[in-house]
Amino acid sequence: MRRHVHRFRPIYGDTDMMGVVYYANYFRFFEAGRTEFLRAAGFEYRDFESMGYGLPVASASAKYHAPAKYDDPLVLEINIAEVRYGSLRITYRLTKEDDDTLIATGETMHACVGPKGRVVRIPDAFRSKLEPDDDASS
Amino acid sequence: MRRHVHRFRPIYGDTDMMGVVYYANYFRFFEAGRTEFLRAAGFEYRDFESMGYGLPVASASAKYHAPAKYDDPLVLEINIAEVRYGSLRITYRLTKEDDDTLIATGETMHACVGPKGRVVRIPDAFRSKLEPDDDASS
Amino acid sequence: MRRHVHRFRPIYGDTDMMGVVYYANYFRFFEAGRTEFLRAAGFEYRDFESMGYGLPVASASAKYHAPAKYDDPLVLEINIAEVRYGSLRITYRLTKEDDDTLIATGETMHACVGPKGRVVRIPDAFRSKLEPDDDASS
Amino acid sequence: MRRHVHRFRPIYGDTDMMGVVYYANYFRFFEAGRTEFLRAAGFEYRDFESMGYGLPVASASAKYHAPAKYDDPLVLEINIAEVRYGSLRITYRLTKEDDDTLIATGETMHACVGPKGRVVRIPDAFRSKLEPDDDASS
Repeated sequence: MRRHVHRFRPIYGDTDMMGVVYYANYFRFFEAGRTEFLRAAGFEYRDFESMGYGLPVASASAKYHAPAKYDDPLVLEINIAEVRYGSLRITYRLTKEDDDTLIATGETMHACVGPKGRVVRIPDAFRSKLEPDDDASS
Repeated sequence: MRRHVHRFRPIYGDTDMMGVVYYANYFRFFEAGRTEFLRAAGFEYRDFESMGYGLPVASASAKYHAPAKYDDPLVLEINIAEVRYGSLRITYRLTKEDDDTLIATGETMHACVGPKGRVVRIPDAFRSKLEPDDDASS
Repeated sequence: MRRHVHRFRPIYGDTDMMGVVYYANYFRFFEAGRTEFLRAAGFEYRDFESMGYGLPVASASAKYHAPAKYDDPLVLEINIAEVRYGSLRITYRLTKEDDDTLIATGETMHACVGPKGRVVRIPDAFRSKLEPDDDASS
Repeated sequence: MRRHVHRFRPIYGDTDMMGVVYYANYFRFFEAGRTEFLRAAGFEYRDFESMGYGLPVASASAKYHAPAKYDDPLVLEINIAEVRYGSLRITYRLTKEDDDTLIATGETMHACVGPKGRVVRIPDAFRSKLEPDDDASS
């Protein structure tokens, strides 16, 4: 499993006076999508944390192609782009559900931090959820 | 010391598509004002927390009299309205600096929680910062 | 139709350093629930706005009974408590889905503002969605 | 004038359950700094908007070097890195005031949009505030 699709609609509180979603709030959407991805992959992030691990964001970026508006039905596609020793790269693609307009693309890099607060190898039980199945095409 | 004045301007991210500050964000302003109040009173909230205490919000309310807009110069007046055994009532009054328009009023109730997670008497060192001086009129 | 139930989970960005949902963010949840309520009632708030109407929040309050945490499965019950000439009172009740713990209760008052920016009678087409059916018990 | 320094402290509402500032909120800080920069340069962004112009964010990125915590005294340095025909590149450098720890660096690209909603040349009156003085070294 490496891809996931998350559907949602921006609320009033996500918008700004320009009438569109405020640029920082796309990173909230990305986070919501990440959590849904992990849950769908059979991995609860809160369990991961209770084992003493964390995936703090090392860097984040977004390109804004077209504005999203209040209550737009949006589709966020989350891709695990790269799994390294102690880090993870996730990419995002946000579109409008009704006409496929590309709204935004983005990327986050995460370090895997262990119980002692240092970067550690991503645990195998977690890694296996992120990597594609040998015989899977998607 | 029981009153404090906090000056600030809303940012773009505080507004919504109606062109005014989003209703939930006034509670962020109230919190910023509370912290500034405590600092001005010679009390750092982070020190209070590092001693194992906390002042979680038990209830909060706001009345919206007139909309605040992006970059408006605002004045938030914070009043310690009541200091009880294990709780605190704070009131807020937000106006526009240039013409004194009343923007919002509000109130928060806080419980004082001790190191064991239970409601405790507000420590004297903290209480003394919140109560008015014997001979002070304001 | 007067009641609606909205299910969701808080994201990381909703929490604060106390490890629980930040007090202002419950008002974001309330707003998401209001929009979902209106949609379920056959009323899109964005259509209402495109007709020149609005329902700005006149006052808002919340009581925090127990903390909600990251990723908790939450149930928000929205009730239209009162429909007056030019205003609306909505109440909220937030519980944890798995054990029914009461998390928060709240209330918002809304004015109905018309195309000229003044408080007007809530339009009948909208009013009828908010009032209970004559013969309905819930 | 091409550089500006903005001082502030994160509030509780900026943090998340990891005990540090939530990654999306750094983009709020960047925005606050941009507005302060423009004001210091003798340019009010709200005036720019009332003339029908806007500077929507085309892309944004941040690298997180060390976590910022609640109430940390932070220093945000804003640099106008590039002024093109119809776009602007701004860079950010956030440090802790007391020990100069590097917290985050970032960048935003802005398009200059005119009254008709299309990308236009940045107006000269605005451009002149962003470009360095001929004889200035900083």
